[in-house]
Amino acid sequence: MKRLLILSVSLGLSLLADEGMWMPQQVPQMAKDLKKMGLKIPATDLADPLAFPLNAIVSLGGCSASFVSDQGLVVTNHHCAYSAIQYNSTPENNLIENGFLAASFDQELPTGPSSRIFVTHELREVTAELRQGLEELSDLEREKTLEQRIVAMENAAQREGFRSRVQSFYEGSAFYLITQMEIRDVRLVYAPSNKVGEYGGDEDNWMWPRHTGDFSFYRAYVAPDGNPADYAVENVPYQPKSWLRLNSEGVGPGDFVMVAGYPGRTYRWQTSGEVEEMLHDVYPTRIAMFSDILAIMGNVAAEDPAAEVKLASAMKSLNNSLKNNQGMVEGLAKSDLIARKKENEGQMRAYAARKGKASGVLEDLETLRLQEREQWQARMLNGFSRFMVPGVAFSIWAYEYAGQRELPELQREMGFQDRDAARMKQGQNQAQKSSVPASQKRLLAYSFKRMAQLADADLPESFRKRFCHLPKEEREAAIDAWVEKSFASTRLTELEFRLSLLEKTRADMEAMGDPLLDYAIDRFKEDFAKRDERRARDGKRMLLRNAYIELLRETMQASGKAIYPDANGSLRLSFGTVQGYQPRDAVSYAAQTTTAGLLEKERGEWPFLSPPRLLDLVRQRQYGSYRDSRRGDLVVNYLANCDITGGNSGSATLDAQGRLVGLAFDGNYEAMASDYAFDRQMTRSIHVDVRYMLWVMDAVDRAGRLLEEMGVKPQFPQEAVQGSP
Amino acid sequence: MKRLLILSVSLGLSLLADEGMWMPQQVPQMAKDLKKMGLKIPATDLADPLAFPLNAIVSLGGCSASFVSDQGLVVTNHHCAYSAIQYNSTPENNLIENGFLAASFDQELPTGPSSRIFVTHELREVTAELRQGLEELSDLEREKTLEQRIVAMENAAQREGFRSRVQSFYEGSAFYLITQMEIRDVRLVYAPSNKVGEYGGDEDNWMWPRHTGDFSFYRAYVAPDGNPADYAVENVPYQPKSWLRLNSEGVGPGDFVMVAGYPGRTYRWQTSGEVEEMLHDVYPTRIAMFSDILAIMGNVAAEDPAAEVKLASAMKSLNNSLKNNQGMVEGLAKSDLIARKKENEGQMRAYAARKGKASGVLEDLETLRLQEREQWQARMLNGFSRFMVPGVAFSIWAYEYAGQRELPELQREMGFQDRDAARMKQGQNQAQKSSVPASQKRLLAYSFKRMAQLADADLPESFRKRFCHLPKEEREAAIDAWVEKSFASTRLTELEFRLSLLEKTRADMEAMGDPLLDYAIDRFKEDFAKRDERRARDGKRMLLRNAYIELLRETMQASGKAIYPDANGSLRLSFGTVQGYQPRDAVSYAAQTTTAGLLEKERGEWPFLSPPRLLDLVRQRQYGSYRDSRRGDLVVNYLANCDITGGNSGSATLDAQGRLVGLAFDGNYEAMASDYAFDRQMTRSIHVDVRYMLWVMDAVDRAGRLLEEMGVKPQFPQEAVQGSP
Repeated sequence: MKRLLILSVSLGLSLLADEGMWMPQQVPQMAKDLKKMGLKIPATDLADPLAFPLNAIVSLGGCSASFVSDQGLVVTNHHCAYSAIQYNSTPENNLIENGFLAASFDQELPTGPSSRIFVTHELREVTAELRQGLEELSDLEREKTLEQRIVAMENAAQREGFRSRVQSFYEGSAFYLITQMEIRDVRLVYAPSNKVGEYGGDEDNWMWPRHTGDFSFYRAYVAPDGNPADYAVENVPYQPKSWLRLNSEGVGPGDFVMVAGYPGRTYRWQTSGEVEEMLHDVYPTRIAMFSDILAIMGNVAAEDPAAEVKLASAMKSLNNSLKNNQGMVEGLAKSDLIARKKENEGQMRAYAARKGKASGVLEDLETLRLQEREQWQARMLNGFSRFMVPGVAFSIWAYEYAGQRELPELQREMGFQDRDAARMKQGQNQAQKSSVPASQKRLLAYSFKRMAQLADADLPESFRKRFCHLPKEEREAAIDAWVEKSFASTRLTELEFRLSLLEKTRADMEAMGDPLLDYAIDRFKEDFAKRDERRARDGKRMLLRNAYIELLRETMQASGKAIYPDANGSLRLSFGTVQGYQPRDAVSYAAQTTTAGLLEKERGEWPFLSPPRLLDLVRQRQYGSYRDSRRGDLVVNYLANCDITGGNSGSATLDAQGRLVGLAFDGNYEAMASDYAFDRQMTRSIHVDVRYMLWVMDAVDRAGRLLEEMGVKPQFPQEAVQGSP
Repeated sequence: MKRLLILSVSLGLSLLADEGMWMPQQVPQMAKDLKKMGLKIPATDLADPLAFPLNAIVSLGGCSASFVSDQGLVVTNHHCAYSAIQYNSTPENNLIENGFLAASFDQELPTGPSSRIFVTHELREVTAELRQGLEELSDLEREKTLEQRIVAMENAAQREGFRSRVQSFYEGSAFYLITQMEIRDVRLVYAPSNKVGEYGGDEDNWMWPRHTGDFSFYRAYVAPDGNPADYAVENVPYQPKSWLRLNSEGVGPGDFVMVAGYPGRTYRWQTSGEVEEMLHDVYPTRIAMFSDILAIMGNVAAEDPAAEVKLASAMKSLNNSLKNNQGMVEGLAKSDLIARKKENEGQMRAYAARKGKASGVLEDLETLRLQEREQWQARMLNGFSRFMVPGVAFSIWAYEYAGQRELPELQREMGFQDRDAARMKQGQNQAQKSSVPASQKRLLAYSFKRMAQLADADLPESFRKRFCHLPKEEREAAIDAWVEKSFASTRLTELEFRLSLLEKTRADMEAMGDPLLDYAIDRFKEDFAKRDERRARDGKRMLLRNAYIELLRETMQASGKAIYPDANGSLRLSFGTVQGYQPRDAVSYAAQTTTAGLLEKERGEWPFLSPPRLLDLVRQRQYGSYRDSRRGDLVVNYLANCDITGGNSGSATLDAQGRLVGLAFDGNYEAMASDYAFDRQMTRSIHVDVRYMLWVMDAVDRAGRLLEEMGVKPQFPQEAVQGSP
């Protein structure tokens, strides 16, 4: 068993605190650095995820958020609340455009059955229990045993209203069992118009200078007994153990800030070969597909206003991914990252040679990668194609579940417990709101046609069986005909039908003769046939990655540097200061934008179209005490060099005293490749200033009630308001 | 007779020296301000256009340039020399791409019969002679008399090899008779590849940050007797009275600089109504037309590589105009210029009321403007259409000339002297090089079709006669047929034929039955019929504008401000310092760009494609002493707040001692509306740094011979070179 890396980081190493998404447990070792950077509270106050202020930091599953009142008020990004706002929108009352402000608790709106707030409740390191004796097993058995142990551990920890998950750190070198309270009654309290919350739209996304009021408010509700419960009128606001206090004076250039949230995924410790594969194969393919998919959805949306509303959220997210992937390629191509990785790998080899250790792990990882790379295009397209029709992806799962359900839970595969079925059901309820069969049909045909261009031998059986008996030149027409015919008779587009599959046996499903369901069953079977092969590779990779990380850690330590685990959706802290950057020769970006810049951008049409009331107030310079005295203007957004990534959206930005001074909502375009490497010169996080949030709420949308709840005295007249601001 | 405004600017007024394109005569009054700004030589040294350093500043007719050696070496912008480089290019040896360096004097290349260098020889104020008694005449007689006096004066001053022109300042309030030596044998000495000279292409045009080596060298040649002559092998380099010295240490942020050149046209003293008309009517129409014309030329070029080469220069210039006009509209729309003009007009009225003067001039100008505005669309389109086919524009002139030729020169209309015929002839020789009938045909049809959309009553007789007898819906087809048929039989596309028209009588031309020539004759007749009407308006306007300018000047003077005449193609000086700007909220532009930024932009494809040798040298940081010690890098371009406009291209940028430190070659996009108003915050001139010029010549293109001629010692090995670098 390896010694725990997290604990093995020696004191006194330079932690380069502006880089890194640190586990709270690592923070005390950084006390000295953080004090030098400007932190005013003891670093130990940031070490415990279960104590103030970190226990006020919650996850929405994909986004971060925080409690900001004793009544369970939660602040996050507007783009994180987007689908909740959309869920409550109708063609008659489009809350995305109009914004929403609940005049009282009872007007707060349910945000749908799959909306969640996860509050960290307990955590425990479980590395020793999970890894015991694993190294002696075969690759396949190692992976199987680990999966079984994780399932057993999660099941044992399971209790109503809570979610227990084993999370892997440093690629399987350490594990934590984390239990979170799973609040299921999440209500929308306040969202500004997207003319504020999404100002600049896709055009400004990832860009600086930025002028976006990307914030919204939820409230957590629980049953009267204090336990999580599905939405019910009698539920009451949740009273969190902790909630953040606001610093309504904000921060300015040079000030210390930190971001607390749940970053999703980074790839900081990938090998040069792995990064090359992403740059040359994976991202370009994704970019091409995302562009095509967006064009197809755009056509469907243009033909049907109802479809347009339903597809809006998916298109927004795809656009975001597209721009992200493009920036990633640009960033990676421009950077010398691959060269630096190669150099670093040279250093690892030299270190190993010096210490008389084996360094073959680098070559072994490369061999494994090249094996897995075979047929990557077919696998990637096939992987995408299952998501083109959500009913197909669900059915593949449901068919496996039908088999697993016959076993006791502990013997089932990971991910097929009864709680998983409940989650899938809620997911389907939510998914139905944005289901547009006309779009799914075209997207499925599209991905099949792309597959049809590959060599037959590379294609999966589920595809070959349907189309490969035909000559190449007839396949496109056959695909169109098959998709047309299948959608004409399938019932997988119906929510009730899909949910009913959760009660069916495999034989029931096979007997139904539904063409898309049959396709899903074929997909399951071909995946299943390869499962143990995949497991054996995963089992092998685990040991290789552990050895690789260990060698990397030692090599870095030898030159005085510490490492932090890649982001994995768990709570992390990133530290930095408010500061601008120089994106290119002769150009400097300041750390703050102001409403003066918003006026400059204003075009009178989307996406640079502010609400008239906001514009009036800006033109009259009615900023109250939210005005920044140094700038003589209202600060809208600011930059910091905190290390964040996707999942950090909505994260609290805290000042040196741990008070809320804004929300992280984006990274800058120049640093998009920072998922692979943090660039001290270029990587910046983009934040909405707490003063802009308060001013919009106070002066523009008259949400004085919420300000008071957060302990801030409104400064503007708060006329009686209707349901919408 | 009005007192001369130029002389009436009182000493002691704040001249706000960074704004303004000043006449040399005005400079001594600014001595104190200029000293404060950093000028180190006496301001009186800049007062005499006929003495050093100003007599080294020459005009190319549309561009500015300067002598930089005693052997008539002239430096200007690459884009000013573009058609001369193109003139010497062949499909086999494309000098635009390859660049050109003459290894010795005898390899210097003639640049075509219409290439010119104008060296100021004499100037004299002639206001009193020209304006004497004009105010007593009727509007029509006033204009006619003024035109006759100007012709007589220019003719009297005329002598071989020189050009004498009367130039109007402050819109007819003052006149100067300026005599320039007209050097006709202009040779191309050196041009870098367009990969240096045009780096960034249209994408970077008007943009900052910029990395363009926009410079080239000519040499002036004269007959062995020292007089201007057409190109001849026996001609010798011209020995100018003065030439500029280079400061090869360059300048940096905060340093004083001045631009000496021949700015073309500004509109600083237009009324609010006149600016509104440009913003709402004229520019939008031009933008639409330029885009369409570029698309049409692009199609022709795509079909025919030979046409592509011929159209390149025109397309480049159209693209430039398009971007200029778009920037103008954006800039004017964003600015509060019209509001400020209205406010200023209010002040003029108030001043007039205070002083008991008449202020009706503002209303009278507005009335005149509205009269002229009638049918502006038809007039504008008709105006454009004559230039679609250069042979038509020429024939309109030639037909009038045929009539005028029968009169003694002094009785002829302005612009129809024998010297004008000689100039027209040379122009036709040059024009033939870029003549593409396929493009002219489509462009003529295009402009006719646009005219066909207007009301018949607004259209000119030359159009009505050909197409208006047909129903509206048949006109497009008729236009296509007419154009097709006309081009099939016209001889106007032949150079020899066109030149022969200069010998023909009107009756000869009418008898030829050439369809395009007939059209041109109709165009002349309809213009001629309206000529006196136009003259009467011009005669009226002259007095109104004089009164307006006088009232404006007095009003400004009352609040301590001086005015300068609008640019009119005469020699001017602009003063400023090297400085960046803030284009928008949170963005700052530094005053200098460096080769580090060039590397950032480098894409490996046009327009961000540097010559390999240049890239190698940059990567090796081989900059010799041209390196900027403060930046530790080679400075490429810099910004200053000098007030320049079109025509200033190629202007010498001088330091506080009057030494050459670069060339002005562009303005910034944010300030494109500065032809209407100088914006202290935003208006910047863009310069190529003298050190970048010298480094490219010395290290990249091995033009050591030219460095030595300019008194600069080469620092890099100068291997033997062929005709091209």
